[in-house]
Amino acid sequence: MTYIRNAWYVLGWDSELDAKPLARTICGVPVVAWRKLDRSVVAMRDACPHRMLPLSMGIKEGDSLRCRYHGLKIGGDGIAEEMPIKTDPVNRSICVETFVVAQRHRFVWIWVGDRALADQGLIPDLWPCSAAGWTFDGGYYPMQCDYRLVIDNLMDLTHETYVHAGSIGQPELMETPIATRVEGDRVFVTRWMAGIEPPPFWRNALGQNGLVDRWQICEFIAPSAVIIDVGVAPVTAGATLDSHDQGVRGFVIDVMTPETETSTHYFWGMARNFEVGDAGFTARFKAQQGAVFLEDVEILEAQQRSLHANPGMKLRAYNIDEGGVRARRVIERLAASSTPTR
Amino acid sequence: MTYIRNAWYVLGWDSELDAKPLARTICGVPVVAWRKLDRSVVAMRDACPHRMLPLSMGIKEGDSLRCRYHGLKIGGDGIAEEMPIKTDPVNRSICVETFVVAQRHRFVWIWVGDRALADQGLIPDLWPCSAAGWTFDGGYYPMQCDYRLVIDNLMDLTHETYVHAGSIGQPELMETPIATRVEGDRVFVTRWMAGIEPPPFWRNALGQNGLVDRWQICEFIAPSAVIIDVGVAPVTAGATLDSHDQGVRGFVIDVMTPETETSTHYFWGMARNFEVGDAGFTARFKAQQGAVFLEDVEILEAQQRSLHANPGMKLRAYNIDEGGVRARRVIERLAASSTPTR
Amino acid sequence: MTYIRNAWYVLGWDSELDAKPLARTICGVPVVAWRKLDRSVVAMRDACPHRMLPLSMGIKEGDSLRCRYHGLKIGGDGIAEEMPIKTDPVNRSICVETFVVAQRHRFVWIWVGDRALADQGLIPDLWPCSAAGWTFDGGYYPMQCDYRLVIDNLMDLTHETYVHAGSIGQPELMETPIATRVEGDRVFVTRWMAGIEPPPFWRNALGQNGLVDRWQICEFIAPSAVIIDVGVAPVTAGATLDSHDQGVRGFVIDVMTPETETSTHYFWGMARNFEVGDAGFTARFKAQQGAVFLEDVEILEAQQRSLHANPGMKLRAYNIDEGGVRARRVIERLAASSTPTR
Repeated sequence: MTYIRNAWYVLGWDSELDAKPLARTICGVPVVAWRKLDRSVVAMRDACPHRMLPLSMGIKEGDSLRCRYHGLKIGGDGIAEEMPIKTDPVNRSICVETFVVAQRHRFVWIWVGDRALADQGLIPDLWPCSAAGWTFDGGYYPMQCDYRLVIDNLMDLTHETYVHAGSIGQPELMETPIATRVEGDRVFVTRWMAGIEPPPFWRNALGQNGLVDRWQICEFIAPSAVIIDVGVAPVTAGATLDSHDQGVRGFVIDVMTPETETSTHYFWGMARNFEVGDAGFTARFKAQQGAVFLEDVEILEAQQRSLHANPGMKLRAYNIDEGGVRARRVIERLAASSTPTR
Repeated sequence: MTYIRNAWYVLGWDSELDAKPLARTICGVPVVAWRKLDRSVVAMRDACPHRMLPLSMGIKEGDSLRCRYHGLKIGGDGIAEEMPIKTDPVNRSICVETFVVAQRHRFVWIWVGDRALADQGLIPDLWPCSAAGWTFDGGYYPMQCDYRLVIDNLMDLTHETYVHAGSIGQPELMETPIATRVEGDRVFVTRWMAGIEPPPFWRNALGQNGLVDRWQICEFIAPSAVIIDVGVAPVTAGATLDSHDQGVRGFVIDVMTPETETSTHYFWGMARNFEVGDAGFTARFKAQQGAVFLEDVEILEAQQRSLHANPGMKLRAYNIDEGGVRARRVIERLAASSTPTR
Repeated sequence: MTYIRNAWYVLGWDSELDAKPLARTICGVPVVAWRKLDRSVVAMRDACPHRMLPLSMGIKEGDSLRCRYHGLKIGGDGIAEEMPIKTDPVNRSICVETFVVAQRHRFVWIWVGDRALADQGLIPDLWPCSAAGWTFDGGYYPMQCDYRLVIDNLMDLTHETYVHAGSIGQPELMETPIATRVEGDRVFVTRWMAGIEPPPFWRNALGQNGLVDRWQICEFIAPSAVIIDVGVAPVTAGATLDSHDQGVRGFVIDVMTPETETSTHYFWGMARNFEVGDAGFTARFKAQQGAVFLEDVEILEAQQRSLHANPGMKLRAYNIDEGGVRARRVIERLAASSTPTR
């Protein structure tokens, strides 16, 4: 098993969940989810307890879902509310396996492991996605690769030079040394560029000329999120690695949910604390970011196919891969333990 | 193995079999069949005994088939008639595995099991398909599901309410209780609606107004046919479950031939004893019935995919499923015995 | 394993190999190859030693290839020349598995087995493809079948009558007896037609009327080439099986490289010693030959599917198959021995 079951994963964007049932396989489990009238979300196994037709093919009736085969009606709690023959007494032991869900940071999260361990305190703290003074938007890509390949990719920005040569790749970034450190189940890869000339994007965001301190801080949060703290501050503002809210700041948000051992739901976006009211900026940035991430999709799916075609080979790690290596070690440690991911 | 090999299965509609070879896999066995000039049908393994090219790619010469690779000529008895080099003496020990076939009730039947057990008396008695005073027509659908899912579907008409909501579904049917009984290798699910107002279709067929007795009698015939006796008679005519030829009557005909463990050849149609000479009625009814059965195909293929995606789950049976449950028990009993299916 | 690994196989036509990387799987091994500025060819495993992205997706820089993921630069010798971060010291123990290649007879050959055994003297002697006074051209087809089915096909020209009925099939050829003989790792199937009227193609090639001696000599050269010596000479010229350069002569060239156990790279063409300067003739003949070989592709892929669909059956051999049978015996003997194929 390449993934941890006792963990919170993103099921979908908050905007994807609505009264209409959404079908999505999470860690190999077919799930159907929908939003109730009170805006809460329910999720359950996407198979009718009667004859296993996917419930996602069913007919919504209020907050309940009626199977489109024989009409067994299932409530949001997964329990039968009406038998195929409406006059038959309801057997309330008929039920679907339900999953704990939570809404936080603009995503709907799901726990497909042991329900008793589903502590909402374990949800990754993606605070920039929902904090006041910040704005956040992004998209979704299905990917035909192991989610860990995406983590490797994101924990090493060296790849930008070649994968994103036509978009965001900047060879000079490679000249700044990085530092990697582990804090519990988090891994940080830090690049601090002091007193440099900002690139046009950041100068515009900052709204002033002059030298800046610039940073890129990749943070892996188990089981499978990577957020990248990026931004600049005027060199005179005294920004430090520990405190750098003096200028403009954004977070590249990447959350990978295993669909199967070799496919992944990839949720991505950008949270920022500048131009927060500019919807046009948001839309343009999302389109650009989506194009960049499609370049990664092409590479990562080819990498997965190569893993399959070269069974005698193994991935090797160089110094640039330290972030990914350490993230994988956290995953392995958590997978081997019985403690839920935190 | 989900199917019984020592049994008669429909290979095709009588109209499908012609001089041109037909290739169809039956119970996992690739079969080629054609009709000889004397109108009899022959069937054999669809592989040349020489280099295994599908014989169905071959060239017909009279009643024989010449392989398109090296020209080995095979007679309707499966025995070599001419070697690749025509002047070479024929080795009549060169032969293809042949299968027993029979033509009955407008279908061509095949027995791919032990030839010695292929008793034509065991062919399911689909008399309405060929009886005088009746007319019969229908179609063929390939389906990506276990044939037993189709049997389940047909032995429980409750599904009509939801699967066929836009076509033949009638909630009021659900209000009439059904009775299930087993007679040997046959299973009956009976619904008798006494003294009701007929729906428009049946009133038109009957050609008169007034209350009627209406019936729906699903009959499973091992290994894999379901025929549904439907009709109405004037309430004054004294129709009974045992004798109901007083009005108008039809049989929905469904014969499922396993192609593989998870795919099925579905032959369907309608036999009726009214408007028997009206070809326009026949054509319109076939088109309507075909549209209704496509609704089942969508459901049953989704059900099969769900069985695969949820390996830990099992199909459950409620009271409405009793017919299907009992039909499956007959199949299991016959599969476990060495007696050919009757 | 259906194929011999310690053997030379055609990787591609000389014209296919250029500065642009070519990706092709040989005996199950993903290979990338390119031509250096000095016209030599290099070949290596198509997976970056770092993170296994196919190197064939990379960026050529001079004779080297830079991986498109992190920029590891690999030389034509398979050894790292530059790390992802250019200022990092190069670790020259980082390398890709390379394969021995050779250019001969208009093809690029590859040896994916034990390098120490890769003796260029073992390359099949396809002299008509490169000899002075001859001209040679042809094409490439990928095929979804075991390469041995192609050898069977080519060692028995009986199939021409039916497979190529619309093109080159000539029933009268079947009337001339053939002789089969084995010489070491070569198998010959010989047909000598003495004192016959030549068909139009050969009369035109010869440029004169009158009776001719005509020959077809199929030669299997292990592990997987078949060349067919064809031609005519005036009956008065004294041509013999051992010496027949008195008239016009061609060689049908067929080289099959296993891609996997059930797929093959098929390289085919025609070498001839007449009209050698007529490029229009060459182009027209290549188009005709390509059309004929597509007829074989259809048959051989259907045969492969039939082998899969009829697991209980075996290929049978008649007298016409003796050439193929003996070629397979050579392959089996070489596969079982530790001696490289010669």
